[in-house]
Order: sequence, then structure tokens, then C-alpha cells
Amino acid sequence: MSAGASLYGDLYGTAAMRDVFCMPSRLRAMLDVEIALAQAEARVGVIPQTAAGAIAAAADVARLDIPAIVAGTQLVGYPVVPLTKQLAELAGADAGGYVHWGATTQDILDTATVLQLRRAFALLEADLTAVTRALSERALLHRDDVMAGRTHLQHALPVTFGYTCALWLAPLIEHRSRLSRAREAVECLQFGGAVGTLASLGERGRDVAIALGAELGLRVPDAPWHVDRSAFAQAACTLGLVCGSLAKFATDVALLMQTDVAEVAEPYEPGRGGSSAMPQKRNPIACEYVLATARGVHALVPVMLQAMAGDHERSTGPWQSEELALPQIFVLASATFAQARAIAGGMTVDVARMRRNLATTGGLIVSESVAVALSDKLGSRQAHDVVERACLLSFERGIDFRDALLREPAVSGVYDGEAIAELLDPLRYTGDAGGVVDRVVKAARTAIAD
Amino acid sequence: MSAGASLYGDLYGTAAMRDVFCMPSRLRAMLDVEIALAQAEARVGVIPQTAAGAIAAAADVARLDIPAIVAGTQLVGYPVVPLTKQLAELAGADAGGYVHWGATTQDILDTATVLQLRRAFALLEADLTAVTRALSERALLHRDDVMAGRTHLQHALPVTFGYTCALWLAPLIEHRSRLSRAREAVECLQFGGAVGTLASLGERGRDVAIALGAELGLRVPDAPWHVDRSAFAQAACTLGLVCGSLAKFATDVALLMQTDVAEVAEPYEPGRGGSSAMPQKRNPIACEYVLATARGVHALVPVMLQAMAGDHERSTGPWQSEELALPQIFVLASATFAQARAIAGGMTVDVARMRRNLATTGGLIVSESVAVALSDKLGSRQAHDVVERACLLSFERGIDFRDALLREPAVSGVYDGEAIAELLDPLRYTGDAGGVVDRVVKAARTAIAD
Amino acid sequence: MSAGASLYGDLYGTAAMRDVFCMPSRLRAMLDVEIALAQAEARVGVIPQTAAGAIAAAADVARLDIPAIVAGTQLVGYPVVPLTKQLAELAGADAGGYVHWGATTQDILDTATVLQLRRAFALLEADLTAVTRALSERALLHRDDVMAGRTHLQHALPVTFGYTCALWLAPLIEHRSRLSRAREAVECLQFGGAVGTLASLGERGRDVAIALGAELGLRVPDAPWHVDRSAFAQAACTLGLVCGSLAKFATDVALLMQTDVAEVAEPYEPGRGGSSAMPQKRNPIACEYVLATARGVHALVPVMLQAMAGDHERSTGPWQSEELALPQIFVLASATFAQARAIAGGMTVDVARMRRNLATTGGLIVSESVAVALSDKLGSRQAHDVVERACLLSFERGIDFRDALLREPAVSGVYDGEAIAELLDPLRYTGDAGGVVDRVVKAARTAIAD
Amino acid sequence: MSAGASLYGDLYGTAAMRDVFCMPSRLRAMLDVEIALAQAEARVGVIPQTAAGAIAAAADVARLDIPAIVAGTQLVGYPVVPLTKQLAELAGADAGGYVHWGATTQDILDTATVLQLRRAFALLEADLTAVTRALSERALLHRDDVMAGRTHLQHALPVTFGYTCALWLAPLIEHRSRLSRAREAVECLQFGGAVGTLASLGERGRDVAIALGAELGLRVPDAPWHVDRSAFAQAACTLGLVCGSLAKFATDVALLMQTDVAEVAEPYEPGRGGSSAMPQKRNPIACEYVLATARGVHALVPVMLQAMAGDHERSTGPWQSEELALPQIFVLASATFAQARAIAGGMTVDVARMRRNLATTGGLIVSESVAVALSDKLGSRQAHDVVERACLLSFERGIDFRDALLREPAVSGVYDGEAIAELLDPLRYTGDAGGVVDRVVKAARTAIAD
Repeated sequence: MSAGASLYGDLYGTAAMRDVFCMPSRLRAMLDVEIALAQAEARVGVIPQTAAGAIAAAADVARLDIPAIVAGTQLVGYPVVPLTKQLAELAGADAGGYVHWGATTQDILDTATVLQLRRAFALLEADLTAVTRALSERALLHRDDVMAGRTHLQHALPVTFGYTCALWLAPLIEHRSRLSRAREAVECLQFGGAVGTLASLGERGRDVAIALGAELGLRVPDAPWHVDRSAFAQAACTLGLVCGSLAKFATDVALLMQTDVAEVAEPYEPGRGGSSAMPQKRNPIACEYVLATARGVHALVPVMLQAMAGDHERSTGPWQSEELALPQIFVLASATFAQARAIAGGMTVDVARMRRNLATTGGLIVSESVAVALSDKLGSRQAHDVVERACLLSFERGIDFRDALLREPAVSGVYDGEAIAELLDPLRYTGDAGGVVDRVVKAARTAIAD
Repeated sequence: MSAGASLYGDLYGTAAMRDVFCMPSRLRAMLDVEIALAQAEARVGVIPQTAAGAIAAAADVARLDIPAIVAGTQLVGYPVVPLTKQLAELAGADAGGYVHWGATTQDILDTATVLQLRRAFALLEADLTAVTRALSERALLHRDDVMAGRTHLQHALPVTFGYTCALWLAPLIEHRSRLSRAREAVECLQFGGAVGTLASLGERGRDVAIALGAELGLRVPDAPWHVDRSAFAQAACTLGLVCGSLAKFATDVALLMQTDVAEVAEPYEPGRGGSSAMPQKRNPIACEYVLATARGVHALVPVMLQAMAGDHERSTGPWQSEELALPQIFVLASATFAQARAIAGGMTVDVARMRRNLATTGGLIVSESVAVALSDKLGSRQAHDVVERACLLSFERGIDFRDALLREPAVSGVYDGEAIAELLDPLRYTGDAGGVVDRVVKAARTAIAD
Repeated sequence: MSAGASLYGDLYGTAAMRDVFCMPSRLRAMLDVEIALAQAEARVGVIPQTAAGAIAAAADVARLDIPAIVAGTQLVGYPVVPLTKQLAELAGADAGGYVHWGATTQDILDTATVLQLRRAFALLEADLTAVTRALSERALLHRDDVMAGRTHLQHALPVTFGYTCALWLAPLIEHRSRLSRAREAVECLQFGGAVGTLASLGERGRDVAIALGAELGLRVPDAPWHVDRSAFAQAACTLGLVCGSLAKFATDVALLMQTDVAEVAEPYEPGRGGSSAMPQKRNPIACEYVLATARGVHALVPVMLQAMAGDHERSTGPWQSEELALPQIFVLASATFAQARAIAGGMTVDVARMRRNLATTGGLIVSESVAVALSDKLGSRQAHDVVERACLLSFERGIDFRDALLREPAVSGVYDGEAIAELLDPLRYTGDAGGVVDRVVKAARTAIAD
Repeated sequence: MSAGASLYGDLYGTAAMRDVFCMPSRLRAMLDVEIALAQAEARVGVIPQTAAGAIAAAADVARLDIPAIVAGTQLVGYPVVPLTKQLAELAGADAGGYVHWGATTQDILDTATVLQLRRAFALLEADLTAVTRALSERALLHRDDVMAGRTHLQHALPVTFGYTCALWLAPLIEHRSRLSRAREAVECLQFGGAVGTLASLGERGRDVAIALGAELGLRVPDAPWHVDRSAFAQAACTLGLVCGSLAKFATDVALLMQTDVAEVAEPYEPGRGGSSAMPQKRNPIACEYVLATARGVHALVPVMLQAMAGDHERSTGPWQSEELALPQIFVLASATFAQARAIAGGMTVDVARMRRNLATTGGLIVSESVAVALSDKLGSRQAHDVVERACLLSFERGIDFRDALLREPAVSGVYDGEAIAELLDPLRYTGDAGGVVDRVVKAARTAIAD
């Protein structure tokens, strides 16, 4: 996003997530890696313990000359050389020479990104849990509240709003696992030196790597991943997947908020979506930003996939495209997740309107099912005929479907009004909707409890 | 791809994979679902066993009137109605009425796709195993063959070709797991009827679903996934990830095949890449198609991610975009995998040229390391100075770096020619390259053995 | 698209456009270039006229051994070598040696593509003209038929359906010019030989190029464009732009077709969108395919943009990705255009329902405008108050807004029922909608007449 | 890009372009529209002239309470309501009521974007002119400096570096026109009120629009373009096209900078690409950022194309995605352009190395041409045979190709050493390369002069 996006507050990225990727956080993460490296090397005996101490003491973002780092970055191409130069100066003559010992620029940048992503995943996981919990509650609450099921944007058969919530909820359960796996894939140390062989550390390379992994709580891989970007690309894909499901949720809520439907509404915030000129409007602002930010995430996924095709031992262009894509994917996703959380937690539901909308097609939406039900007593042929006539009457003249049915002597001779009302209750025709709710909510609760 | 792509044989998709997604295979898969549905419903007692038998007997692609199905598809929008109409006719008056009982179009199309993807994954897994095995062998074979490590397309430090192979190999190990997980996510029954509630099957819906899952060897999900496209999107992402790593492999091979580098070459096929006008050329044709098809896969991933945002209980447009993206992703990936397999299995390696190229920068590529080695006897200051002078002499006058070093009295006073040659052996300076090879190959073998 | 897409008839690409890019058409176009090359070279005196005649006579797709060409393509990487080999044999010993004289593979493939695109553009332009004409007519026809203007999916202010049509129409006018410019950019000869310098033609290269351009009716560029893919990428972008506008049209129609809105419907075709189970449904099938195919086009645009970054004088991978993207973009776009044409020409419009839907919010949608109108006689303060009370009454108790207003003594004392009805006529509040219709239709007619 | 990108200085976007899209510039542009609107309305007589004056006087970014605007934006969804609220307060009680009269949020945001894009295009056009000029000069300077032409990364035939420059230059000429057309399409007023009909301005709507267009120097369209995003999408596509050509340029330079090729280098800046560990390296940093930022631009193009498919009279999600894509496309492109300008202006060229690399394949690269030349005196058959033997000798034993030829009695009997040297001069075999240079440079100069 352009700097101008900051005008929009959290709408294109939450403050918490933007903080993870802001410049000071990035520098902080890089310093954290340099500190840990010095400590690991001191532990293994590659550099003096006093140097490691001095480096740790000096590594303070507040003491950096940031404009000089920016200028140096623009010159060198990457921020590590100017940063470590300043760190070396701050650490003093004796310790300074041990700063960044045996490491290469990409070791620091990649591992710093890993540390940032660890924070970022935690934020997303918390939001996903909240959405999961909120939708579970709503699914149960509205388990038996009927509404029109719609396919191809047409009324099809009755469902329940609880079922609708369960369909929003179901993919999130497996997305939790996907997020965990993506985080685990990412939590991996990058440390290989110039060409990944740790050549300048001689025999001690692997030991330093293992100590550094322990220091940072990161897995030590079998090989450096300077040119294996699978884990970052998987993270991007995974966020793309979750945002896809949240975009489905927002699509539905926006459609259900239409003036012409008005079954669900985003949580009310005074002023939101407000046009003083049009007080009757209740704009689906949160949905809009879910949809917009999810599109941003999806568009950037191929950047990460294509960045995998780097050249030789350090890539020329592809890697540099990650810096513009990966943080942005997380920032945009944070808005997708947060807005979805707000909707799931605060939406208002008009169950009466749901029933009314269901009735607008007369009995058409349940006509087939009613014909089946009537055929017990009327026989299949006659049941079909009376239902067809009643539908026609109801649809063309606006007569209530129940009344239209009762005008048929074959029907009124066998059923009274109450029996017909019962036959016409849409809830009868929601099939396994309740079963879906029960199974999905149970699975969601199990997943959250894990 | 346009129909014209068929001119290219397997270059944009293998014959085996194209067969999985060709029209007869698609119809066959749809019929398989209809057969299994009838059998499941017979077992549960929803339809007569004789009807199931008649349906199974009638369901033969060879008996279909395919032009009529195409015409019907174009009219209706989907092939299921015209297909089941023909199937019902073929099954005869008694059984015909039980065809497609309780199912909706998307149940059949999605489950048919699942059956096709099961075949498709098996093809890809076999190719991935072959690439993994071939690269493992090469990594060991060339474990100690030195070559220039290149970063930012510049010679950096020596590595080995075995190490290079190990870097190509390393991501494939985890990709095996990713492919397995993606396949498992996909192997899931779609069966929900019009709005996913199985309403028309009354109390028997879930039982039929369970029987149908058993019939097809597919997991029965807690909820229908008509509008939860996570598994298909995950499949697309996963293929994108693997193709990303194979594109990295092809990028490197194409670069190493440059006339100016000439360290590696694609397997020789007489005529390949051939221009009668330019016999000296050995074009990286297989690499080109790996790169081209991987780009195609990557471009289509967002189509699948965005298709997740369907509306209500059946989506209007997004779902229809899967049909153009998902089969194509598998077909293109099949070419990526197959060409990569051919390269991994058959590439030729010029280890002498690798050594020669390594020497073209004089001793520059190992100069820093040599200075460190010399400092044992010369002290750090003097070692640095003699190396710097020798580099300059070597670089500017084209003198062999070893000779340039020996011209320095400080050096020749302490080392003889043999000792210097040993100090200059690039293999000394490949650090953990051998360790990387050993660990990665071990992990690969374990993975393949699983 | 996978081969399986052929099951869908024209839904993912019209027969006419698929024919442009099918294998025989591709081979025909390549032969046309070879014929024209021989004739141009004969005219300039580079090869004998009799050879040119023999080549032209031999160049018949029906005489080719297509399986051998496919096999050769798979071996060589491109179809030109196997094709010209067969052509040379067919032309006989004397003429055969002059086949493909001085040309390179890419000269033939690119120029053949240009010839195919010329046909493809003509198809698209015809469809675009038809859509433009149909929407112009509808805009005028419904110039004064009021409907709810909707922003953020909420009723906002009244517009007319003619205005809605004009908004669909407006972008198409400039798209005509964009398509023309894109076609002109594409209609350019590719002819440069191995590295673009026509080296093997000595001094005669430019003359041959000019004669060949004349032969094919193509512009002769200042430089070969083997690695300048601007024109093809521009074509892709342009189709992306037009498909974007048609997707907007389809989005609106699909929304207006919702059961809950039902103001517009796709042209009725018996059986279309049909589910025997749900006879009340009228699925927006054409819209779905507009939306799906437009997404396909949009996803492939970056493939063409990225293919611009080829290497040196002939690219390694990027160029090969065009073959899978460019024909497909045209094929998918043909479906987008054709379905949009069908909708524009045949949609049915329910103006009564439009009025009814407009009234569902009581007077809210015009309340502000009515308050302004009333303030002439009541003063701004009182006008605002009575409108607010009437809105509340109307909205909460379902009372007709006109009646609610007339319950206000301040209103009924000054206006009679007829005057109020006139004040409430939504058409009063459609502002410049008619002006927009008139201007846009006029511009469209001028454009079509050009 | 994430906020963290600011660490990279101009590498992902120039300071000048980032300034165009920064928050204060955005607010300034919005205020400029509000000022012009008030002035236009005063001129037409819709609001008092004094109000317009007061609004203009109050509209100062420095007086805004920006945190309050950000908070308001996050609540309302868009910044216009909070901005105009503050503007109204600053303008005072009398004038305040006339702020934003008759406009809607999107009128202001879109027109403000237009004003920003006008500045942005000017920046890009200046850079494009500079690249065009620099490449023209280089094309002429190196018109006759031979180098290896490379296809599929293989040496093919000789070209000249001037020719290479001309191939980089050629597409830029038409890109100038594309940029101009894109800018003209964008320079268009957005002004339509709530649903685009200017309903609240009654009869005066069109007059105000025309006056407002005049005020801002923008074309007044026939229809509002709230849901016709063609111009913005065209701008995105156009930048995508130019970045594609610049990425081709950077691809080539990066390849030519390889240690193994070393024919061209980015301008030297001390410290750039610097690794203290590897002083011999000269990293293609500018190329890397051209390639990375061009990828970012390309990935975002589909966001703009898909944003065209908005719903009804104001879109729900698609429009909101433009805010994250369009400014970023310009910011990223500014880096692509600026880095390309730096390379074109400052690259260093090693013509001696070009000749040396050309010779590495012995005479192979010109062998076919030499055989043709020799056939004048030796006859075609014998010429072919002696060249073939000489090639083999040269290639296998490393003998100079000229000497190898002269070892053939048939050759040395007819040609002396000087004649052979002349025959072997690669410049003889560069065909139309000089013609390409001359034509392209002439066209470039004409274009710049316009």
C-alpha cells in the first residue's frame, strides 16, 4: 500500500500488524538476530563472551542513526551492511569486529522476517479463534431459524441461518491447522554465510547454527534456504486460503445486507457507512474491506510463488520482490481477519425478515417437498397436480400458498388449516441442516480446545 | 490452453495427465459417481437394488450421445442434466427414475473432479519421486566436485555441484508431504443435494452420504463443501509451490547451460533445440517449458483462491472459473514435473569446465579464505597484503594466482608450490557443503522410503 | 483450459474463436507465412519464382502428416522445423531448398499468431458492436423507467433503467478505440532471422521484409520484435479492460436477477439453468460464464506482461508462456463477449417490479428530495420535520409514504393527494439521468457509425 | 508495501512519487477538489461567492486535525465525511454549509486521485524520456561494436551492442504514446453525486460539472464513471507494459553483468552491492530492483482489472481494492523507471570483453556465414567441408579458427591471412543491425522532439 493508505487507519491493516512490520520493528528484529548470533558464537567459542555482551548491550534501536541506515540501504541495496556498521561502532573497538561474524546479509534479513512472522501468526491465530468462536455460537443460536437457501442467487430450498453460519465456520477449522503448519514451516533458522556453506566459520559452522537456532527458538534446517522460499510462499498461500473463506463470509453478509434482502447487518456503529444525505443506508463497510483486502492478498500470492525461482545461491530480483509482497500480505490479511471478526461478533440478524423473504415466492420454495408430503394421503399424481395449481394461484395472484392449497377440495377434504400449516413449515424441509450445525460446531469446539 | 496447444505434444502437459482431464474421462468420472450413488442408495434401501444394477450396467461412456450432451450442456449451463437424462434413458423405464436420486449437479461435478484429481496426484507423486531420487544420486555423485557459487549472478565462493543438487533437492522433501496433505484434503465426498441439506432424502441423507463415501473411498465431511473450496484451492497452491521449486531448478540449469558457462546441459536428444543454421547451439528446451508452464500454474492460483468467495449455497461465477483453472493447473504442472524429471535424470555435467570457470577470476573467489589460511604463518596483516597484491597481479595481467602468490618472497619463503596448491584448492573452502549434501540426501531417502 | 472444457461447448469460448486457434488453423497460418515469404523473396529476386510457386502449391494443411509434426515439435521444442521439413518435401527437390529461406522459427510463429489475431479481433469487434447497439436501444427504450439506484448494495436514490444501461454502455465506446489500437499494434510483421538482423539475407534483408509485409498486409517495423512483446501484451491488457466492463454488466444483471430483486432476467431459453427439482429458478447462467471467463482473462494478463522480460535476442521461458496464455485469453474473451451480447440483446425487464422495489423503503429513498421540494411552501424546518415523521410512520407501520405525509396537517393543508403524488414521483428526482442517456447513446451511435 | 519498505529509501519507490501519494498530498488533493467545487458552484450561482472564498481560505492541510480524520475514516469507511466536516468548521458557520455541496464521497476521492495521477504521470514521463535519450546515445555510440547475439541463452550469431541498445529502446517509443493516452484517459472529472445523476443540484448539475472541469483542467465526461474504472485500469496496464520492457532491459543487463560474461556493468557506486567479504563482486542491484518492482506492478494489474466489475452505482469491495493497488502501482513503477534510468545513463561497457566472448566458440558463431562467403571461390560443397573441419579443430583443440582455416590448403591457396581475417570479422555478419540502430534512433529522436 502507498503511504497514503495510513489515512485509512486499520481498514487496510490493523495497528498491531502494521507495528510488526514497521521500520523500527524490522530493525529491532535484525538486531535481535545479531545479538543471538553473537551469543551463540560466544557459547560455541567462536567469539569472546565479552564481545557478545558488548554487542547485546549496544544493540538498541533507539541508538541507531536511522537516516544514515536508510541512505546506506539505498546505496548498498540492503540494510544489513549499514546496520551492522553502526552496531559495530556502538559495540566499541574490541567487540565491533565480531559483529555479524560469519553471516551474510540474507541470513539476517530472512531470520528477522521469521521473527516478525512469528508475531504476525500469533495475531492472526487469535483473530481466527475469535471468528470461529463467534460463528459457533451463532450457528447454535440460530440452529432452527429458517431462511431461504439461495443457489445461483435464486431462492432454492429452505435452510436455517444456523446452517449458513456453519457453512461459514466449517472451513475455518481446517484453516487453523493450515495456519499452524505454515507457522511451523516458517519457524526455521536461516544461517549459511555467503553461499550457504558457512565457509568462513570453518569446522564450527554447524555448531554455531545449532546454538543460534536454540537461542532464537527456531528449527535448524538440513540446508540453508536462501534459494528455497517454500516456507514463505506457503505462508502466503495459507493466508490466501483463509482470506478466501473470509471473503466468502463477507460476500454473503454484503448480499444479505442488501436493502432488498435485509436479513443480516454488520454491527451498527454510529456514523459508519454514513451519508448524511441518505440516512436510510446501512453500508456493508466491514465487508467491503474484507473483500478489498482479500483481493490484495490473492494478487500477491503469485509474487511469492514466482519468487521461488531464484537463481543459483542468492537470487537476483525474485528475492527482492518478497520484501514488497510478504509483509503486505500479512498486513492486508490482518484487516481481512479483523473485519471478519467484527462482523462475526457483532452482526445483527432479522429472523422475521428471513421468514418473510422465504415466503415471497409463495410456496414455490417448498412446493416439491410439500407435494411429496401430500402424496401419502393423495397419491403422487394428485398431490403433484394440486400443488402445481396452488403455486400458480399463489404466484400469479399473490394469494397465500396455504390458502391456495386449502381451496383445493382434495386437500381441504383431508387436511385442516393447522395440518396444512404444519406441512408448510419450512423447517420440515431443511433436511440435514441441523445435523450439519451440530457436527461442525462440535468440530470447531474441539479444534479451539486443542 | 487453446486447442492449438495440442500441437505441442507433451510440452504443455503430459499425455497421461491430459487423459485424466479429457472429455471422456470427465464423463466417465461423472458416471462413476452416479453408479456409486445408486449403489449406495440401494444398500441403504432408498432405491431398489435392481435399479442400481441397471444404472451401473447402463453407465458406459461408449453408449453416450456426446454431441447431444455438449448441446445440452451449453443450454443448461452444466453437463449433469443432459448426462443423467441419457443415463436414465439407457437404464430403462424402471431404473431410469432412480438415476441421480437426491443429488444436485454440483455433487456430481465436484465428486467427479475429486476422482480425477486422485489419479492426477498419483501421476505427479511418481514424477516427484523420480526427481527426488535422481537429484539424490547426483548430489552424492558430485559431492566433492567444486564449482563457483554464484550470488546475484556473481562468482562468490566455491561450492560443489553436489551441494547445488542438494539445494534443488531439499525443498522437494517437504513438497512430498505437502502433496500428500493436499491429496488427502481433496479426497472428500461432495454430496448435499440442492442446498447442501440433502432435504429430498429426508432422514436417510446422512446414511446415503456415508455409504457413498465408502463406495468411492472418500472421506465424508461434516458439511457439504459446495461453497467451501479450500481443498481445491489448497491443491492449486500446493502445485504452485512445487512448480516454484522446479522452476528454480530449471532457472539454474538454463543459466548453467549458457554458452558462456556451459557447466551443465540438458539431456541430449538429437534434433532437440536444433537449428540447422546454428549447429553449435544446445537450447535449454526442457527448462523453457518448465519455466513457461510453472508461470501458467502460478497465474491460475489466484483464480482458485478467488473462487473461494462464492455466494450463498452455490456460487454464481466463481465456481464456474474453477473449471477453467483447476484442470489446467494439473495439466501444466504435469509438464513442469515431467520436464524436470527428464532434466534431473539425464543432464550432463562438465566438472572440468566447472573448475575452469572457477579459476577465471584468478584466485579472487578464494582470496579472503586464503588470506585467513596464510595468516597462521604470516600474521593477519602481512597475509592480507600479499593476497591483495597477488589478486591484483592475477586479475590485471592474467597471471595464475598460485604463481602470483609465489612471487611474494614472504610466501615463497614459507610455502613451497605444493603447499600453496593445497592452500588454493577450492574444495578446502566449501565449508559445510558436504554436510548439506549428506543431511539432505539422507532426509530424501527417508522420505522416499516412507 | 483443459481438453475437458470442450464438453462445455461455447461456454468457455465460442466455436468461431476456438476455430481461429485450433491446430489446423495454426498450421494454416504458419503455411500462409511460409508461402508469403517465398513469394516476397521471389519478387525481390532472392529465390526463383518457380520455387515460390511450388511452395505455394505444396502448402496445404490437408497434405501434412500431423502426428509427425506433433512428434517433431515435442522433440525440437517448436513446430516450425518439422513443418518446414514436410513442406520442403512436398515442394519437391528443387523448390524444397528455398522453403523458410532466411527466416527463423520465431518469425513464422509470431507472424502466424498475428494473422490469427487479425481474425480474432474481427470476431470480438463484431460482438462488441452488437452489445453496443443493443444497450443503446435499451437505454433509450427505458430512458424514463425508474428504478432504485443502489450504492454499496443499498437503495440510495432513484435512477432509471435507461441510465443503468447507459452506464453499462459508456465504457464500451472507448473500448472500441482501444480494441482498434490494440489490433493495429498487433498487425506488424515479425521477420528478423536468427538474431533479428536478417544476416543470412545479406543486403537484401530489408527488401524482403518490406515485400513480405506487403504480401501479408502487415506493417514492417523498424526493428524485429522477438523480444519486444508490447503489442501482444497490449492486446491481452485490452481484452482484460473490455472483459472488466462486461463483467460489471454481468455482475449487475446477476444481482438484478436475484429472486429478491427480480427486475431483470437473462433471455429465457427453455431448459437453461434448469433444475427439474426447482422449477421456480431462473439461473443467471450467461452472467456466470461472463464472470468466470473474465476472471480467466484477468488472471492471464500478468503472464503476458511478464513474458515481456525475455532475455537477449530470443527468450528462454517467458516467450514460451505466451503460447499458453494469449490464445486462451482470446478464446475466453470470446465467451465473455458472446454471452454479454446474448444478455444485452435478449434480457427481459420488469419495469413494474422496479417501481415496486423502489417503493419498499417507503418514501425513504426520496425523502430528502421531497423535504427540499416541500420547503418551498412549508419552510425548510417544518418540511424536514414532517418528512421525518412520515418516514418513521411509513417504515415502522408499513403505511404508504404518500398517506403518511397526508396525515400531516401541515401538508394536507397545502397539497392535495394529486400534488403529493406528483411530488413523490421518483422520476422527478433522477436528475441528469436522462441527459446521461442522451449523451452516451449519441456518442455510441457516432462510434458505431465510424 | 509495508511501512517497513521505507527502510529501503527509493529502492521500492522514488521520494518524488511517494510524495505524490503520501497522506498530506492525498488530503491536499481532496481539498483542492473541494475548493474547485465551491468556486465552480459560485460561478454558476449555486452557492454564494463569499462561501467559495471562505472555503478556499479555510482549506489548508496544515489546519486539519489529522488524527481525527484518520479516526473518522476508520469509522465511516472513507475520509471524505471527516475531512469535509473539519473543512466546514474551518470555513465558519455561513460558508460551512456549502462545503461539498451536491457531491458524493467518490466524486472527491476519484477526482483527487486524478489530480495525483497527473503529477505521477509527469514524473514517469520525464524518466522515460531520459531512458530513451540515454539508450539512443548508446545505440549510436556502440553501433559497430560486435558482441555475441544470444538466443535461448546460447551464442547464435554476432550482433552489435548498438543493436542490443536499439532493441531495448524500440518499445519505449510507442510506450511514450501509450503513457500519453493513458494520462489523457485519466484526466477526466468525476462528479455525479450520490448515484451519479447530480440529483441534488436539480437543473444545474451539468453546468456545475462543466465549470468544475474547467476549474481543474479536466475533461467532463458524458457519464459519471463511479463504476466505469476503465481509465484507472488502463493506467495500470500501461505502467505494466512499460515496466515489462524495462524488466527486459534489466534482465539483459543482469545477465551481461554475470562474472562469466562481464560485458556490461551497472554504474559503479562505491559501496553498492558491496560485501566486504567479497570485494570482487559487482552486484546488479539496480537491475534487481527493476525486476522486483516490475513484478509488483504486474501482480497488481489484475486487481485493477477486476475492480472494474463493481456492482450497481457504487461498488462494494472492488472499488476499495483500487486504493491499495493503484497508488502502489505508480510508486513501484517509479522505482522501476528510476533504476532503469540510472542504468541506461551510467552503465559501463566492455567492448573488448564482448569481442573476446564472441571468440570463445572458435569460429562457430560465424561458421555458416563464412562458408557462404568462401563458396564464391571454393564452391559451396568444398567451402562447407573446410569450414566444418576447421570448426572441429578449433573447438576440440582450442586452435584459433583463423589458423585452423589457413591449415586447409584449399583455403590458404586462395586467401592470405589478411583476407581471411577480413572474412572472419564478425561485423560482416551483423546484417541489418546497423539499419535497425539508425531507424530506431531516428524514431526515438522524433518522438522525444514531439
